[in-house]
Amino acid sequence: MVKNELFFPLAKDGALEEVAAKIRAEYESGEIGYYCLPQQGADEIAQAEEFFSARNYDAIVLIGIGGSSVGVRALYEMLRPRVRKSLRFEILDNLDGHSVNRALEGLNFARTIFIISSKSGGTIETISLFKVVLQRFGISNLKALAKNFIFITDAGSPLDIFAREHDACVINMPANVGGRFSVLSAVGLVPAVGLGLDASAMLCGAAAAKERYLDEILACDPAKIAENKILRKAHHYATHKSAKINVLFSYGDALRALDEWYVQLWAESLGKKIGFSREGLTPVGLVGSRDQHSFLQLIMDGVKDKTVTFLKLTDNGIADAVPGISLQGLEGCDFVNGMRLDEVLNLQCDATLQAVLNEGISVDLIEVSRLCEQSVGELFYYFELLTSATGAILGVSTYDQPGVEVGKRILKSLVLKSRD
Amino acid sequence: MVKNELFFPLAKDGALEEVAAKIRAEYESGEIGYYCLPQQGADEIAQAEEFFSARNYDAIVLIGIGGSSVGVRALYEMLRPRVRKSLRFEILDNLDGHSVNRALEGLNFARTIFIISSKSGGTIETISLFKVVLQRFGISNLKALAKNFIFITDAGSPLDIFAREHDACVINMPANVGGRFSVLSAVGLVPAVGLGLDASAMLCGAAAAKERYLDEILACDPAKIAENKILRKAHHYATHKSAKINVLFSYGDALRALDEWYVQLWAESLGKKIGFSREGLTPVGLVGSRDQHSFLQLIMDGVKDKTVTFLKLTDNGIADAVPGISLQGLEGCDFVNGMRLDEVLNLQCDATLQAVLNEGISVDLIEVSRLCEQSVGELFYYFELLTSATGAILGVSTYDQPGVEVGKRILKSLVLKSRD
Repeated sequence: MVKNELFFPLAKDGALEEVAAKIRAEYESGEIGYYCLPQQGADEIAQAEEFFSARNYDAIVLIGIGGSSVGVRALYEMLRPRVRKSLRFEILDNLDGHSVNRALEGLNFARTIFIISSKSGGTIETISLFKVVLQRFGISNLKALAKNFIFITDAGSPLDIFAREHDACVINMPANVGGRFSVLSAVGLVPAVGLGLDASAMLCGAAAAKERYLDEILACDPAKIAENKILRKAHHYATHKSAKINVLFSYGDALRALDEWYVQLWAESLGKKIGFSREGLTPVGLVGSRDQHSFLQLIMDGVKDKTVTFLKLTDNGIADAVPGISLQGLEGCDFVNGMRLDEVLNLQCDATLQAVLNEGISVDLIEVSRLCEQSVGELFYYFELLTSATGAILGVSTYDQPGVEVGKRILKSLVLKSRD
Repeated sequence: MVKNELFFPLAKDGALEEVAAKIRAEYESGEIGYYCLPQQGADEIAQAEEFFSARNYDAIVLIGIGGSSVGVRALYEMLRPRVRKSLRFEILDNLDGHSVNRALEGLNFARTIFIISSKSGGTIETISLFKVVLQRFGISNLKALAKNFIFITDAGSPLDIFAREHDACVINMPANVGGRFSVLSAVGLVPAVGLGLDASAMLCGAAAAKERYLDEILACDPAKIAENKILRKAHHYATHKSAKINVLFSYGDALRALDEWYVQLWAESLGKKIGFSREGLTPVGLVGSRDQHSFLQLIMDGVKDKTVTFLKLTDNGIADAVPGISLQGLEGCDFVNGMRLDEVLNLQCDATLQAVLNEGISVDLIEVSRLCEQSVGELFYYFELLTSATGAILGVSTYDQPGVEVGKRILKSLVLKSRD
């Protein structure tokens, strides 16, 4: 269960009507596929279950970059205590020889499942890393792919055609779901099933967030729209005159990869040109209490150009406490003796929230009772909706990424030049 | 060897004189200790060598947060290929039960060295985690600390007194070196020695950076000062009207922890109140090519509020190549076949730099020939000097962190209230 408390005022009467209408239009157009993912996915989960249950494996290697892996890493880190310890999980998402070596070291190929994930089916890093794996394990007969490879890609993509040609297992993602909004599609569901997680419960969680936040927008109820927390928060962010940096301050190491997922989602969705002008909000992900000893000073005393969302777990599932030991000369630290570590961590979150609030900075708090498939699905959907709503108010094209294509073209010409 | 190329114009004649004078004054006051660290450290290294060479160990656990661990993680990640594989290294830097369990799991206590690092000697997280370790391994007789514990702290701190009282090994850091500027003091040198790295070479690298960038400032040569790249870059950053976010885009996974160290250094040093006004520049750390699929869109098309420093290694020490395999339908990715992975990665860096530059965004490039102790020391000193110079131009108190004290006080009162 995810709870959100906003420490800033309601928007002016009727201010949220316009964005609600935009969201409705997006939803009803059928072009933005992620909205409906909570009601889908049963087929993909069944296909994945069939694939994984027929195989003995003790490692999964995911090859994918950007939207194909950032969300998967987030769900893995958040749900890691629920994955059996003997199952190794590696992600190859960079052309870095050291990382590749570490990820592949000591793998028993016959007991490893490889997931090759690329929406377009032609991502240069992903295909190159796929080739590295083929060579590393001496796979020259591609019919062997049917055994322990699984492909996630758009139907009809080059990778889709390639994989089907070689009788390998392919699970498609909906064409109308963008990469960074795809964690609740096959992109996240298939690895989740492989990891032994309850993928259906993740969708149930997302459905709960949809019901709470989206369905009242779809129902056109002005009173509910005025109080809708996603719309209020999006409106506050998109119309804030000076705070163009949105910090997600998550308390607990398991949330670090969620921060990174949020950073991708927010940055790539909201940084856009509109005609000759430029729009964009900059995301920053922090982990508490660690980053209280780093970035916090800038939030507290620096230019007031930031909003801060605090994210905490009311129960992290572990009961470790600070031992009731008093060390000579260090008694100044005894005031937390006997408290659970996560209790201290959460009080650090509360204290920091209070200190930031006292500086007059826009703050909100997300509380998650406990990390489980349900709450993880809820969190994903919450941030996706928030991004859609913020993009709608900014007036940007939330779902494309034209700015990164130039670099790809330049890369190709640099490579060709370097080989001349 | 570290090379820096700036893709922006020289500052106006004489514009850098004032900051050069400020740096000289800081240096000559003797109050800012890190400036002189490259010439110091021999004693600390000798002490550490004596300690580690007398012990058999196959794991090191560092307990420390903020300045006590961020830099150590950075040097470890960058130099990891030079650390013997059988040596395990863990950092405890958060009150997170899951992380603590994973870090301590399977350790052989008798063959583990614990480094307890806290400048003030009273950091609540560090002391609490120290107590957790004591309890976990059943250490009730504190005389046992002399065997496999080493303490790094200011002389005369509560932790210093405690450790000496129990005949444990203590290596002090200079009192005039702030936590986030301390990686070239005992804070970084001692773990480096324990990891089997050449700590002296790290200092040599720092000395090279000092000679190249600082000594010409100290020598008061106006012609050299006008071309000093640290001063030019600092001036460009500090006086840029709209770009208040400074991105470090590092190509290679080994540089990710360096990014985090830079983020702490930059954020905590430059985010300050000056009277009733607020100053600050916001750091962002990215890893390429991965984050080309995430944050890059925002840089390219979003509001022009960012500068970008690209950091690349001309040789990452591994010769893995993209195999010369052509896959049916995926021939579009064959243009990188046969190229080394790091070669492709670096061309991605060049292509992205070119694309960002084409948008009229302030860019510079740092090239490191190869990660070794020498170049790592050089990098650390380079960024520290850059921070000092930028802080001097902004007019902030670069070396304190008053904003984080409020939260600590609120924490204490919240804890006491929760225990009522």
